[in-house]
Amino acid sequence: MQTLPSTNRLEAFSDGVIAVIITIMVLELRVPGLHEMSTADAARFDLRMIAVYLLSFVQTGIYWVNHHYLLEDLKHVTHSVLWANLMFLFCLSLIPFGTQWIAVRGVNPYPVAAYSLCFVAPAIAWVVLSFAICRITHVAPANGALIQTVSAVLNVGSVFVALRMPYLALGMIGFVAFLWLLPPRRIVERTRAAASLHSDSR
Amino acid sequence: MQTLPSTNRLEAFSDGVIAVIITIMVLELRVPGLHEMSTADAARFDLRMIAVYLLSFVQTGIYWVNHHYLLEDLKHVTHSVLWANLMFLFCLSLIPFGTQWIAVRGVNPYPVAAYSLCFVAPAIAWVVLSFAICRITHVAPANGALIQTVSAVLNVGSVFVALRMPYLALGMIGFVAFLWLLPPRRIVERTRAAASLHSDSR
Amino acid sequence: MQTLPSTNRLEAFSDGVIAVIITIMVLELRVPGLHEMSTADAARFDLRMIAVYLLSFVQTGIYWVNHHYLLEDLKHVTHSVLWANLMFLFCLSLIPFGTQWIAVRGVNPYPVAAYSLCFVAPAIAWVVLSFAICRITHVAPANGALIQTVSAVLNVGSVFVALRMPYLALGMIGFVAFLWLLPPRRIVERTRAAASLHSDSR
Amino acid sequence: MQTLPSTNRLEAFSDGVIAVIITIMVLELRVPGLHEMSTADAARFDLRMIAVYLLSFVQTGIYWVNHHYLLEDLKHVTHSVLWANLMFLFCLSLIPFGTQWIAVRGVNPYPVAAYSLCFVAPAIAWVVLSFAICRITHVAPANGALIQTVSAVLNVGSVFVALRMPYLALGMIGFVAFLWLLPPRRIVERTRAAASLHSDSR
Repeated sequence: MQTLPSTNRLEAFSDGVIAVIITIMVLELRVPGLHEMSTADAARFDLRMIAVYLLSFVQTGIYWVNHHYLLEDLKHVTHSVLWANLMFLFCLSLIPFGTQWIAVRGVNPYPVAAYSLCFVAPAIAWVVLSFAICRITHVAPANGALIQTVSAVLNVGSVFVALRMPYLALGMIGFVAFLWLLPPRRIVERTRAAASLHSDSR
Repeated sequence: MQTLPSTNRLEAFSDGVIAVIITIMVLELRVPGLHEMSTADAARFDLRMIAVYLLSFVQTGIYWVNHHYLLEDLKHVTHSVLWANLMFLFCLSLIPFGTQWIAVRGVNPYPVAAYSLCFVAPAIAWVVLSFAICRITHVAPANGALIQTVSAVLNVGSVFVALRMPYLALGMIGFVAFLWLLPPRRIVERTRAAASLHSDSR
Repeated sequence: MQTLPSTNRLEAFSDGVIAVIITIMVLELRVPGLHEMSTADAARFDLRMIAVYLLSFVQTGIYWVNHHYLLEDLKHVTHSVLWANLMFLFCLSLIPFGTQWIAVRGVNPYPVAAYSLCFVAPAIAWVVLSFAICRITHVAPANGALIQTVSAVLNVGSVFVALRMPYLALGMIGFVAFLWLLPPRRIVERTRAAASLHSDSR
Repeated sequence: MQTLPSTNRLEAFSDGVIAVIITIMVLELRVPGLHEMSTADAARFDLRMIAVYLLSFVQTGIYWVNHHYLLEDLKHVTHSVLWANLMFLFCLSLIPFGTQWIAVRGVNPYPVAAYSLCFVAPAIAWVVLSFAICRITHVAPANGALIQTVSAVLNVGSVFVALRMPYLALGMIGFVAFLWLLPPRRIVERTRAAASLHSDSR
């Protein structure tokens, strides 16, 4: 009997790519050269860069956590899931590029707009991936429609806001990240149910 | 009783290498320095680079998907499979090098020819790996002879075309990628059979 | 029945991130340009850099080994464990940044203080992660309170010492690393018990 | 009953580190700038660099294959195995550094001697790791004493030869790589035995 390809390699590969994406951003944190800046300027620059890096890290982390939840109910992969996942990973890999843009050009209108765009791309790819997987599992995505809509509006809006007020745009992306830090309701319920089950069977 | 080395580590290691290759290319997407280019030039340059990066990403993704399919029927590894796989990974790791070449020198005859060559190397290594694995599994590779031949001709041809018409050569590589995006017939059948089986047993 | 998310992906992802962190530091080891330094100067510079790189590598290795021990008793993950772990990985990813700082600016007060700070961050994140996990497993962390306190004092102290005596600060960080190289008592006992068990059952 | 830590995470982490090491070397393959070199010079430079990169890749690949064989009989890990493995990985991560050295400074006495030294370090760490593991498994390492001795002499010798004849030193390292490409006898026998067993039970 022929078995269906399991999700093991899909998970392992995605984990590998996201691990590289999330750690490669630290390479963007370029230490300014010795003679080019005063120590105080360098310290201020570094703190701002660490803040932007933290934002990118948290956004990428949110995708990893939700990718984790999304694949939980998936038992086998299909060609279209493999490619929807690859396209999602491609869009995700633009985040270090956007982060580096700010690192090189500073918190200015054009770079921050590019940075915002780098979050719109994975958001679209995420919706496509969710649909491709839900078609197989027949389980609705764990994330509600409300949070999806609010963050879509804020995400797309931040691209335009960035052209006038780059710091406000960064704040909007940060607020989206904050919204997603809370666990989705279904995960909370499932965790509680399973935990009580486990403590019973111990 | 002595057990045979399983394919677990081969898969995990290959996934790791391909994950690094596919994400390291984003590092090639260098943001041009602040004073060197106008904003419009930079935007045009970035879009072209993102297109080339997408092409490299899709090509590498195709290899990952097919590597996935190729190893499905393999139950144990041998010394020659380990090395055929390592040589395949080596050739694959030339793709970021070719991508960077274009990123640094632009879409010109010599760089695009080098870029095309970077796709011929993994194609040859892929054939060697397929043979090494099929000798053990006694299962014919999932990809038909027709697509193999067509893409071999286009791949090798693009090296020479690049010397006169670099954009046409990139188009040829893109067309090869397009051909491989469709799932191989055997995978489609197997997926369908297994899916109906799974839905029965649910 | 719904199963709880297992620790497999958490472990795999953490291993991926730490693997990238630990090897990406080698990229900081920049070879000085041909014309800028004499061969003797370059050799001295390289040896000092390899020593700092080894220190960062051992510190990161210590976290990996203890992360390994910490997760051993964990059977399922929760949303808060996922995020405590991500924050720990974020703090850990600052180590290559601190290492690069010294590589670029040399063993001077300000860079070494920054380097020391890069070890305080993961130490705090580690305590948070330990608590998040112990709340679930009801197993006390393997590392004793004494070594935790001593290394906390030395870690924080080295930030201030660095401003006057950078080499002493590096020595303090090295001493903390040395303290953690010994296996925690519980691991030793468990290993011994299990080893004797295994040799019996053979 | 308490179980002993399995080798799963040790294998996964080592695979991750070696995957990063082996692919990060492609980053050393810097494309020379547009105006600095003629096309012919660049092509010659690139071919030589690809050859050195291939040598480093094969050497690292040899360690991965043998690491694979070494861990096959290991059922559980101890604190000393974890650290012997980490030290081995540290020494292995010096190979990209040595490779970059030649990439920046060319095939000259001093860089090639440094490159040779980068192969002596993992060779010593490998012997330590072998001993740490064989103490637990009570299985002799798969690699014979003859090949170990010959390659040790050639490895150490190449450091000194490099100071007079750098190309000969590279040849010696290449010859050591060639010696290790053949599968160790025990692996051949085991593979054959297991393969015939598997074909019987099919």
